Amino acid sequence: MFSIHPLDRSQSSEIQQRIDNKTKPPGALGQLEALAHQLALITDTNRIELRQPTMLVFAADHGIAAENISIAPSSVTHQMVLNFVHGGAAINCFCQTTGMQLNVIDAGILEPIDFVSPILKSQRLGAGTQHFVHSSAMTLQQVSQGLYWGAEIARAHLAQGSNVIALGEMGIGNTSSASAIMAAVTQLPIEQCVGRGTGIDDDHLNKKIHLIEQALEKHKHSLETPEAILSTLGGFEIVQMVGAMLAIAEAGAVILVDGFIATSAALIAHKMFPASKDYMIFCHQSNEAGHKSMLEYLQASALLNLNLRLGEGTGASLAFPLLQAAASFYNDMASFESAGVTKV
Amino acid sequence: MFSIHPLDRSQSSEIQQRIDNKTKPPGALGQLEALAHQLALITDTNRIELRQPTMLVFAADHGIAAENISIAPSSVTHQMVLNFVHGGAAINCFCQTTGMQLNVIDAGILEPIDFVSPILKSQRLGAGTQHFVHSSAMTLQQVSQGLYWGAEIARAHLAQGSNVIALGEMGIGNTSSASAIMAAVTQLPIEQCVGRGTGIDDDHLNKKIHLIEQALEKHKHSLETPEAILSTLGGFEIVQMVGAMLAIAEAGAVILVDGFIATSAALIAHKMFPASKDYMIFCHQSNEAGHKSMLEYLQASALLNLNLRLGEGTGASLAFPLLQAAASFYNDMASFESAGVTKV
Repeated sequence: MFSIHPLDRSQSSEIQQRIDNKTKPPGALGQLEALAHQLALITDTNRIELRQPTMLVFAADHGIAAENISIAPSSVTHQMVLNFVHGGAAINCFCQTTGMQLNVIDAGILEPIDFVSPILKSQRLGAGTQHFVHSSAMTLQQVSQGLYWGAEIARAHLAQGSNVIALGEMGIGNTSSASAIMAAVTQLPIEQCVGRGTGIDDDHLNKKIHLIEQALEKHKHSLETPEAILSTLGGFEIVQMVGAMLAIAEAGAVILVDGFIATSAALIAHKMFPASKDYMIFCHQSNEAGHKSMLEYLQASALLNLNLRLGEGTGASLAFPLLQAAASFYNDMASFESAGVTKV
Repeated sequence: MFSIHPLDRSQSSEIQQRIDNKTKPPGALGQLEALAHQLALITDTNRIELRQPTMLVFAADHGIAAENISIAPSSVTHQMVLNFVHGGAAINCFCQTTGMQLNVIDAGILEPIDFVSPILKSQRLGAGTQHFVHSSAMTLQQVSQGLYWGAEIARAHLAQGSNVIALGEMGIGNTSSASAIMAAVTQLPIEQCVGRGTGIDDDHLNKKIHLIEQALEKHKHSLETPEAILSTLGGFEIVQMVGAMLAIAEAGAVILVDGFIATSAALIAHKMFPASKDYMIFCHQSNEAGHKSMLEYLQASALLNLNLRLGEGTGASLAFPLLQAAASFYNDMASFESAGVTKV
């Protein structure tokens, strides 16, 4: 379904030499140097170009939300999609200041939006997933359809010229789905995978842990493949993010991974195609308890750590100016030779 | 010399209420919420405006550099000032991508620049400081002149309409000066105040620690006042940064503090006028060993932590888009009422 090649690292030493010849002590730009190196490998060794930065926010509802383990009811997913479309959410503000084009995808919220908007696309896999403690969240057919639709919208933006696409999400209950996926993929203790989402108290946290334990026990024989994990525990937005990530990696473009939920999609994409990780930039380490362990599992470190716990792609959007800065120093900063500075 | 008022916090609860009414769970924007709150207090409760963001990079040389405890010789300070003026340094690239206007100040490099540039200003306190192990780095008169000149250039930009000014620096040897100032102000053990600068090895680190110990011992009876600390251990760029910070605080504008050296200036500004800290935003926690302790002493936390160890104002410039994002959500994000979202 996807053909994903590992990055060609044959020019890595050349890239590193160019970075080391910039007028600064070796390594003095810290994480920006590794970032520039990765961007040069992905885009162009001679000149990093970031074209038409795009933010895709996938929204969906979750059967597990019926358990009241989020601070908000499922109806808030729909309300927030309207807020995105009307320009009033945090991600609208951040895309505005960082120059990213925002698109919202209804991947399966409970009630569809009843009007047309140029930034809203309907790719509904259903009216919310099933409650994953009682049954699989979705069918394998829905997984296939979701991967396809997620890939399709990413490919549309790639075809229009974008080479850097961020994935964000909205969905009341989706930290539960992401935590369950994390536990299934990483085999870490459940307590390490479950957090407070946008702010639940101890009682609700214990209930959430217990429910996820139940689900993992019930489905323990049907979590063998990434597709089966998605079908059993996934969310419609998570499945479509996986498809989008794989399509972006296939096209050799830059994937901006947002917080905890987006990283659960990255875990699955990585499990399906390990080489997809070469194209991922992890933007923000969420305040959500399990995110640090998720990133460690992927041997990744995030650019920002601002204690955000909002999702929507906000962390990815806030990190985008760091990519621009990395590109700028790689492309335009003088070398020791050109500037006449004594090499240190 | 300066009249600095603590921030008027009488509208703090109103500001916090506005932030809490934005369409997001309470606190979900993490550090950006505290940032927006501070910016609203400094600029305008109704609408945060960031006008003409300006970067002032102060450059100077240091007598202590004769000890060969940096990875580069003093001549590199001059070479890098030329690089700034010609647009080839990291700070040029980052100011370009983040929309900040760059100005460079020769606060006392060894050899002055022998041509005129619209972005270079000469405010020379001398041709490098004295070796602070043998004598005071500068006279108290030079301290006064430096505070005045630093204030003067900041005031010129404030008068032109800027309300957000970042302070950066360049000066081979200046981590030694900053470490010595830190030890004198904080009274922390010297080992905790001294680091590897842009990358010295263990032998050079031990020598650097020993030299600073010697200086602190020799001058221990002349470190009573902030001015005396500056005179004994300071650098010309550090003194002028202190003056600039105090002028910006006096004008009620935003001070963007860069890394280790700039924070040593902030330590002095804070010691002279504790209220000046109300106007400071700490942008990047440097890789330099002592910076974390400096920030803890000031009870401050930095926005970014990218393992930079370059100075030049790079950390401040990279953080500026986060201020724009904070302003944008504070100014333009919908409230629960206006968006029809169920309040959580």
